[in-house]
Amino acid sequence: MKDYKIEINLTTKRKTKPQFDRLEFGKHFTDHMFIMDYTEGKGWHDPRIVPYQPITLDPAAMIFHYGQTVFEGLKAYLTKDEEILLFRPEQNMKRLNRSNARLCIPQIDEELALYALKQLIAIDRDWIPSLEGTSLYIRPFIIATEPYLGVASSKSYQFMIILSPVGAYYKEGMNPVKIAVESQYVRAVAGGTGNAKTAGNYAASLKAQEEASKTGYSQVLWLDGKENTYIEEVGSMNIFFKINGEVITPALNGSILEGVTRNSVIQLLRHWNITVVERKISIHEIHQAYNEGLLEEAFGTGTAAVISPIGEFFWKNEKLVINNGETGPLSKKLYDSLTGIQNGTQPDPFGWVVRV
Amino acid sequence: MKDYKIEINLTTKRKTKPQFDRLEFGKHFTDHMFIMDYTEGKGWHDPRIVPYQPITLDPAAMIFHYGQTVFEGLKAYLTKDEEILLFRPEQNMKRLNRSNARLCIPQIDEELALYALKQLIAIDRDWIPSLEGTSLYIRPFIIATEPYLGVASSKSYQFMIILSPVGAYYKEGMNPVKIAVESQYVRAVAGGTGNAKTAGNYAASLKAQEEASKTGYSQVLWLDGKENTYIEEVGSMNIFFKINGEVITPALNGSILEGVTRNSVIQLLRHWNITVVERKISIHEIHQAYNEGLLEEAFGTGTAAVISPIGEFFWKNEKLVINNGETGPLSKKLYDSLTGIQNGTQPDPFGWVVRV
Ligand SMILES: Cc1ncc(COP(=O)(O)O)c(C=O)c1O
Ligand SMILES: Cc1ncc(COP(=O)(O)O)c(C=O)c1O
Repeated sequence: MKDYKIEINLTTKRKTKPQFDRLEFGKHFTDHMFIMDYTEGKGWHDPRIVPYQPITLDPAAMIFHYGQTVFEGLKAYLTKDEEILLFRPEQNMKRLNRSNARLCIPQIDEELALYALKQLIAIDRDWIPSLEGTSLYIRPFIIATEPYLGVASSKSYQFMIILSPVGAYYKEGMNPVKIAVESQYVRAVAGGTGNAKTAGNYAASLKAQEEASKTGYSQVLWLDGKENTYIEEVGSMNIFFKINGEVITPALNGSILEGVTRNSVIQLLRHWNITVVERKISIHEIHQAYNEGLLEEAFGTGTAAVISPIGEFFWKNEKLVINNGETGPLSKKLYDSLTGIQNGTQPDPFGWVVRV
Repeated sequence: MKDYKIEINLTTKRKTKPQFDRLEFGKHFTDHMFIMDYTEGKGWHDPRIVPYQPITLDPAAMIFHYGQTVFEGLKAYLTKDEEILLFRPEQNMKRLNRSNARLCIPQIDEELALYALKQLIAIDRDWIPSLEGTSLYIRPFIIATEPYLGVASSKSYQFMIILSPVGAYYKEGMNPVKIAVESQYVRAVAGGTGNAKTAGNYAASLKAQEEASKTGYSQVLWLDGKENTYIEEVGSMNIFFKINGEVITPALNGSILEGVTRNSVIQLLRHWNITVVERKISIHEIHQAYNEGLLEEAFGTGTAAVISPIGEFFWKNEKLVINNGETGPLSKKLYDSLTGIQNGTQPDPFGWVVRV
């Protein structure tokens, strides 16, 4: 790795840390952040680590009007030996650049970004919680900063990385979620931005989530935008089904985000000689498998929850209860294996883990 | 109208104004801005006019990550008698609230917003250019400000209005644009956010625009996201066709923005006893009308350009040249009538104009 020059300006006023045994997700932030600027003609410049501080922008900055922005999400874990582990972070930097390409944001130097991330984490290492299931959530993001009211690509950007200590996702053991199948709202469509990690996709999803939660469902199952038939994602996660011994996940089609957890699950399953197929799968096929008693398990995959077992789908006034609403054995095994690799308590056959 | 209490804090340092005879769009901003805050449990509060100033937000503010934001765009004109005219501003405030509903942002008091807007314009009235075709562009917008990394509705927001003096859209007479029909990228789909004025729609559109401009086309024609067949919008405008004496515009279907100019054009045409139909219209139908010599005119409608005549469509390697690439008589008549009403040089039969 090259020796990148990152200016470091440490804080003189360290914050009081929250209680690490009762952390909420995404509410607390560490003492420092990474920033780098982009200026047309000059490229990305001035990478620096500075005290965590507010962003000051002109009210006409394009991020506020035209949503030109991308982000990533990954985690760092502290092992019992006080080592800091990242899980496939190069995948997140690659995806950030794929998102950049879709949103017309200039490419970043992935190696520099990773180097900066490691530096930042090393500086704020006291903020990494160590209790079982806890971690340091990492949020790299880029925003368009040019003050200009016109629909065009911005001529200036800021790339930032902020860090947030997060508690265990499952505080009282794995708890399957209930999911409403969404038939009115659409998250993304082929030709849109669904396979980019960009703000507008999440803004579009809020309404469906709000309406589902009114009827007691915590997330929605997204169907495709063209035919409202094929399954795409669940909440902000990729989705897997176990049907009659075989594992199926929707094929990447341009409107599905290519999850790092999704890819890792596929590799793990193949490693275990379990058949896993990436293909189109319709809600009707799920319903039929359910009726025939062949729908054995369903689960979401994503950085936050790692594996999120699904206990029930609500579709057209019918409740499809899966595995008696309990966590299935495959979901559990995947969760244990992945989190074990991530936090260093299990061997890492794929070389996924990166030490800071 | 109620007597709203808006705190006013005038600047002590007025900016130097740009040269009003060579204004660009959206680059200069006036001396003041309007701000109002929303806090959960308290509602919208503290409406105030303050010196134009940067926005300072936590890096975790939700606008930067999940794109929960809406905006509007309208114009103020200065008449020869130094009166300030707004064009149907209540329509923009209504649409802002419709966008709010889709984006799970709390409703604003439309009357208060309009009152605030008038106050702000009165304070910065020296900034309204008066040359033919110039105006003051008005940008109300709302952003989610809660510092929280989780896909949910924000618990706090800021509503702002900024003002920008803009030059004449057509500096050397009306100039028809060349449009590439977009067959790969999609702006919006039924069930998505296409009928809301929200940042993500514009972010999604940049890539298509960038690719079209490489081949010499200034904007793209958007087709529907489901079948990639039916015409939706052109660039950031609504679209109209004149085919065999009849005017046709795509019917509002959930993925098309309900333009104020679109609605005004429909009313004007009916007033002139010209048939105008809102219905689904496919690119194939346009192609056929073109082949039969029946495609007489095409034009976009929107606040910025008012009427933007289309001289050519590029579709499947074929150039469809309309009216010899020149501005058609109906486009011209609509432009003259609408701008005449807007800047007070023509009578206002519909009561559209609002005096500040
Ligand atoms: C929309 C969406 N789908 C899927 C995922 C899962 O991706 P990953 O496994 O890389 O976290 C995410 C992000 O976490 C997401 O935001
Ligand atoms: C996507 C889009 N379509 C259409 C329009 C036209 O709307 P209006 O006539 O209200 O300006 C706009 C805004 O100007 C727009 O952003």
